Order: sequence, then structure tokens, then C-alpha cells
Amino acid sequence: MEQQTNTANNHNQPSPSSWPTKAWLLLSDVRAQSPLIQCITNFVSMDLMANTLLSAGASPAMLHSLEELHDFTPHCRALCVNVGTLTPSWLPSMKTAAQLCCQLGTPWVLDPVAASASGFRLKACMELVELKPAVIRGNGSEIIALSMAFTQPGKVSTVKGTDSIHESVDAVEAAKLLAKSSGAIVAVSGATDIVTDGNQVVGAHNGVTLMQKITATGCSVTALIAAFVAVDKLHALDATVSALAVFGVAGELGMRNAKGPASLRMHLIDALHGLDEAALQSHVNITSLS
Amino acid sequence: MEQQTNTANNHNQPSPSSWPTKAWLLLSDVRAQSPLIQCITNFVSMDLMANTLLSAGASPAMLHSLEELHDFTPHCRALCVNVGTLTPSWLPSMKTAAQLCCQLGTPWVLDPVAASASGFRLKACMELVELKPAVIRGNGSEIIALSMAFTQPGKVSTVKGTDSIHESVDAVEAAKLLAKSSGAIVAVSGATDIVTDGNQVVGAHNGVTLMQKITATGCSVTALIAAFVAVDKLHALDATVSALAVFGVAGELGMRNAKGPASLRMHLIDALHGLDEAALQSHVNITSLS
Amino acid sequence: MEQQTNTANNHNQPSPSSWPTKAWLLLSDVRAQSPLIQCITNFVSMDLMANTLLSAGASPAMLHSLEELHDFTPHCRALCVNVGTLTPSWLPSMKTAAQLCCQLGTPWVLDPVAASASGFRLKACMELVELKPAVIRGNGSEIIALSMAFTQPGKVSTVKGTDSIHESVDAVEAAKLLAKSSGAIVAVSGATDIVTDGNQVVGAHNGVTLMQKITATGCSVTALIAAFVAVDKLHALDATVSALAVFGVAGELGMRNAKGPASLRMHLIDALHGLDEAALQSHVNITSLS
Repeated sequence: MEQQTNTANNHNQPSPSSWPTKAWLLLSDVRAQSPLIQCITNFVSMDLMANTLLSAGASPAMLHSLEELHDFTPHCRALCVNVGTLTPSWLPSMKTAAQLCCQLGTPWVLDPVAASASGFRLKACMELVELKPAVIRGNGSEIIALSMAFTQPGKVSTVKGTDSIHESVDAVEAAKLLAKSSGAIVAVSGATDIVTDGNQVVGAHNGVTLMQKITATGCSVTALIAAFVAVDKLHALDATVSALAVFGVAGELGMRNAKGPASLRMHLIDALHGLDEAALQSHVNITSLS
Repeated sequence: MEQQTNTANNHNQPSPSSWPTKAWLLLSDVRAQSPLIQCITNFVSMDLMANTLLSAGASPAMLHSLEELHDFTPHCRALCVNVGTLTPSWLPSMKTAAQLCCQLGTPWVLDPVAASASGFRLKACMELVELKPAVIRGNGSEIIALSMAFTQPGKVSTVKGTDSIHESVDAVEAAKLLAKSSGAIVAVSGATDIVTDGNQVVGAHNGVTLMQKITATGCSVTALIAAFVAVDKLHALDATVSALAVFGVAGELGMRNAKGPASLRMHLIDALHGLDEAALQSHVNITSLS
Repeated sequence: MEQQTNTANNHNQPSPSSWPTKAWLLLSDVRAQSPLIQCITNFVSMDLMANTLLSAGASPAMLHSLEELHDFTPHCRALCVNVGTLTPSWLPSMKTAAQLCCQLGTPWVLDPVAASASGFRLKACMELVELKPAVIRGNGSEIIALSMAFTQPGKVSTVKGTDSIHESVDAVEAAKLLAKSSGAIVAVSGATDIVTDGNQVVGAHNGVTLMQKITATGCSVTALIAAFVAVDKLHALDATVSALAVFGVAGELGMRNAKGPASLRMHLIDALHGLDEAALQSHVNITSLS
């Protein structure tokens, strides 16, 4: 675990001792407000993502038709865009919904799944980043690919699937560069979840390794970030860190009863739904890394 | 709970004491006949809907290609159409399958998910209602929106996602109007599930609140209604009420072992699969409300 | 259970006593190598298929966009194509990915879900078979329909949904004919899983009946076959038999704690993830049937 430090960069960020309180207050706000979260996401993740949002108290809506966006998206408190099973027919909806959010001041969150899987996908991710997401969350490989696409565009190679071949800690500099060039909060999932606005770097240390063996846990925590940002859009970094910690704590609590990845998935969602202040406060493990 | 009354309107409907028997006989028929049920449904619901139908003894088929309908739909005993993730490319398949069912005398069931989410969606739902579904099942907000679209078309506003902001009991008059104007049995899910043919109104009081925190439970009970109507298409109201009660009882039995929404989902499906006559008879709670 | 026999046809096949060891070595290779498996599959199966591959140690990637295949498919160790929710817009991706695999020497596996559901689907399946899958896995009805389509094309009738109306043992001759005419290993799921290269026939007797009440178990074992073939592509029959046995053993172990189809699904995935050599060796039940 990293040493907790307080530097001049931390002026907008809770002190280490107040992170558990911050996370609890945001979760309570999600439960109280039940924000409507639009998800334009991949087919694999829809079930778990919707159940994650419901168990956290938010109201998910999986609508993606271009014909509906002008009527529907303005009623949403946040948007989650995930490119997991991207095709050319879905991209215009993703972009239009993101543009509407920008115009309306609604935060939106990008999950650049397998960003470097193809030239088509990487270009689509870059076009989406240019539409000003409040938060970008990916694994180490995805964030490194996306960051390089902006800073060293000739050097991105397409080499891997949806699983990361990089540790999150190896992606800190790439995440900072991407945050600076895009204006988004950038989160990198891993053994330690890294979150940065380009200057300060925060580590969320909750979660268990076995969560990586459940499909769509990454996609689902991105949607949870959207729900947290929806209730505190002026503090997207805090909301992102809190959502990652809350999901991780749910995983830790779920792990107590799990016998493998499928029972962990069930217990994680149950734990997220039942999470109380005492359990959250005693488990949240967030530190400043900058 | 409502007072049980028997009025002149109830001539086609089981007496209160015979509802549990009716529900058991229909479930037994589904198990014995394993009716083939075609589902043209949203992406979020496909997994739970297929598993709901399988655990009830039916044979689900998630086919939606326009190219296949003339070959395949005639072999089905019922059709379930759900507009949850509607796009213009899916609508022709929904309409063609519904038209085929009408021509063949095959019952079909409509789930107008988030009917008022957009003008495009509301128009699509209205076009589908005109294709004579045997049953329409939605939550309070969906049924109110759809009913108003037929009776006060200028007054429908697009305001909410997939979760209802109306109690089912607030939608009784809207449901009756929709049933009369469409010729369909109309079911409204809620704390009490309401079912009407436009004259008589029946309440199914089974189920637990936590089911609302599991995505696609509403979609799945609509598919279960299709399976029950498939084995008793001349009594669509009875079949609808019975399916709602059976699903609700499975939820009540599942709740005994549940620790949250994800374990409830699992135990509900297990309970639906294992439901025996004694448990069903002792739990079914259906009353006449008209 | 069939009598174990060793005939001249078995020269490429492990002796009965060595099947458990073969299965364990292949599972160990999947865990050690974590092969990237591309899945172009139906919407219903995506969640369970991805979780099956992850729990077995493989790395699933659900990518299907035509625009991505030339960049992405060459990085995969195997491809799984499943026609469950086939539409004309997906077929070109399936064919292009299969062609790329053939050119690259990458094995690919075909799951002809509901092959006879429509003329459109049967034709698509036949076109895919012509693209040289290493393995074709279906239920009895699917394999019989596909085999007749090649040998008695006028006689295939479109009659049923996704559930089989034939026992696997009734499909042995059809499977052998299909294997001979296509050059693929053909597997038929059922009470006994049948695998043939057109000459030798092997039976994998593991699994429990209740697995048929869980949607997408068939689809998922096809993906598992792809993962096993990925690590031993020169012995596709052995890999296919081993994958079927491993999945069946996971089902048997899962059944110990299951109370119905939904808990079986969970325990099966947990068991697949935790399967050790002793448990696998003591449960694998594979015999020669030719």
C-alpha cells in the first residue's frame, strides 16, 4: 500500500481521513436521488451493468437508438458510453448522445474497451474523447493505448483483447497525459485503481483479484462512476474514486461468501445493495499517490 | 388487500377460491407441453427471459431476423415482443411477427418498455398495439402513457426511464381504457399487479419489492405470460393473472433464501423450476377488484 | 454406459485410461496460456460464454464488427461462431472472420444453433461449414438438419426451435456423414455427448440433465471447445472431447450444491474455475463408441 501523503496538489480532494465519509455520502445521494443513467454499452455487459446500477440505487436505461436521443438523453443525469461491441451503426448514437450531454452540462463517462483492438476502434475512441467525457475509465492497456494515440499517434500497435497486459501502476504517466490532453478525469483499473486529473493522483486499493474473472465488472464500475458523478458533477475526481472504492468494497464483502467467480458476482451485487455506513467506512482504502 | 367480490362481470373468470387451482393447472400445462415461445426482446433481458421460460418448462427461441419469420413464427405457440432497446432496424421484425401471429391465430404479448421515452418509441408502441396483441403488460407509467396516446394523444409527455413513477393502482382507469380501445388484456405490474379486459379488474398480490431491483424481471414475466397464454389462448385474462401470480410466488419463495437482489434472482428461478402444487396453492393471492 | 472398446480406428486417440490425463493437461494449458478467443455469438449467450471462458482461464473477446476483423482476428488463438440470433448484417462478419482463420491456420468452431429454423439460417450454416471449421457442435436436431442439408438437401424441413427433439445417439450416423463431407470434427450434445471425425466415435458421458434448463450452456461449451482446440489445434478431436468432459464434470460438481437451474449455473462456473486434477481425473467418463 502506498504511503498517504498530502501535497499542494490535493486542495480539491478530501483528506485521507475523509474519503470513507465522502464515499458514503455519495452512495447515499445515489440511493436517495436514484439518478437516471443512460447506458450505450456492449451486449456482454448490459445485464451486469443494469443490475449494478439498480443495486446501488440508480435507475439504468439501456437506450441507444439515434431516433430517441433528442427526446430521452436530456432527462438523464449522466451517460455511460462503452465501446465493447462497437460497430459503425452504433457510433453515431454514442457521439450524438455525448454531444447532447456536453450541450446540456450533463456529465458523461467513457469506457474505451479494448481501445487498441483495431484502427477503427481506436479512431472511434479518439473521436469520443474529443467530445469531452467527464471521466475515462479503462484498464492499463486501454489507457496507455489511448494516451499514446493522442501523444504519439504513430506508435500505437493493435495487439490484445479486452484483458490488460499492463498493471495500472505502469499506466500512471499515460493516464496523466491523457487527463491533461482531454480534460477528463482518467481512471485505470487494476490491483490498485488509479485516478488522476492530470496533476493529483489518487489510489483506490479496494477490490479482489477474482473480480477480473467475471465478465463486465470493469464495464459495470464505469457505469457506477457515471451514477456517482451524476450526483456530484462538480467533483468528478472524488466521485470516480468513491465509486471505484464502493465497488471494490462490495467485492471484498462478497468474497467472504464466494466459492468462485460466479458466486462472487452474486455476492458482490448483494453486498453493493446492502452496504451500510459502518462496513463501508471500515473498508474504504484510498490514498494519495502524488 | 382488496375485498373479494363476485360481480356479474366475473362470468368468464375463476372464482377466488379456484384461482390457485387455475394457476397450477396452467403451469402444469406449460411444463407438459413445453410450448415454443418466440421472443423479440431487448438485449438486457435476453438471458433472464430465456432462463425464466426454461425454468417454467417452456421452450424459448430468441429469433428476430426478418428473413426467418415466415419460416419460423408459424411453428411458435406464442410471441413476446418487447421494445426495450428498440431501433428502426428491429421494428419491422416486430410488426411482421405480430402480423403473422394475428393471421395464424397465435397469441402475442406486448411489453411497451419505457413507452414514453421518446416520440419514436411511443409511435412504435401504438403501431404494435394496432396489431392486436392478446396481452399488453407494463408498469404504471408505461400503461398510462400508452393509454393516453390513444385517448388524449396531445397530452403524452416524455419524462422518465424504464422505472415507473406511478403505482399500479393509479393506472387502473388507464388500463381499462387501453383494454377497451385495443381489445387486449392489459396488465399493470406493481405492488399489486392489476389485470383487466376493460370491464373486470383482477389483482394479483404476490411478489416482493426487491424484484424491482433486478433488471428484466418485468420483461421476463411478460414472456411467462406468453407461455401461459400459449396453453390457454381462449382465456388470456386467466392466463395473464396466473402467470403474474406464479412469478410472484416464485419471488416470495426465493426471498426466503435471498440476501440481496442477485441472490433473489437466482433463488426466484430455482423456485420457479421447483414450484409444486402445495406451495403454489398456499401462496397464490388473487382477488377481484371490480 | 457404453462398453469401452479399442479398435483400429483409435490410432489417433488416447486410450480410455489416458482420457482423464489428456483432459487435465489441456485444461492446464488453457489456464497457463490464457488463449485469446474471439466470439461472434448470439446476444443470449454472451454473458455466460464470456464467464465460461474466463473461469476456464481463457481470454474472451466479443468483437464482431466487420471493420475490426483484419486488425483483430489475426491476434486470436481460436474463433467461435454461433448463429443463434443471426441476421443478414452479422453474417458477413462471421464469414470474413472464418476465412481469415482459414488463411492463418487458426482453428474456428461453429455452433449451428437452430440450424433448421429457417431457410435463411440453414443456407447460412451451410456457407459457414464450407469455410472449414475445425469443429461443429450442435444438438441432435441441429446436426441431423445440417447433415441432411449436405447429403439430402431436399429433405430438410424447418420445424423446431433451439431445443433438440432428437437424442444425440440418434444423430451418430448424421454426425459421421457431416464430418466426412465437411472435414470437421462433429460433436453432438446430449445425455451422452458424441464426437466423431467421420470414422472413430467417442462418447463423453459427463454432465447432468438440468444443464439443459440453463440457457446458453450449449453455446458456452462450444466456446470452451474453441479454447481447448486453441491450445492443441493438431488434435481437434481430443480437444473437443476433453472440453465437453470438463464442462460436464463442472456441471456434476456444481449439481452437488444446486437447488435448481440458476444455482446450478453459478456452481458450474465456480466448479470450472476451481477444478483440480484429482476431481477431474475421478469424474471424467469418456469411452470409445466405434
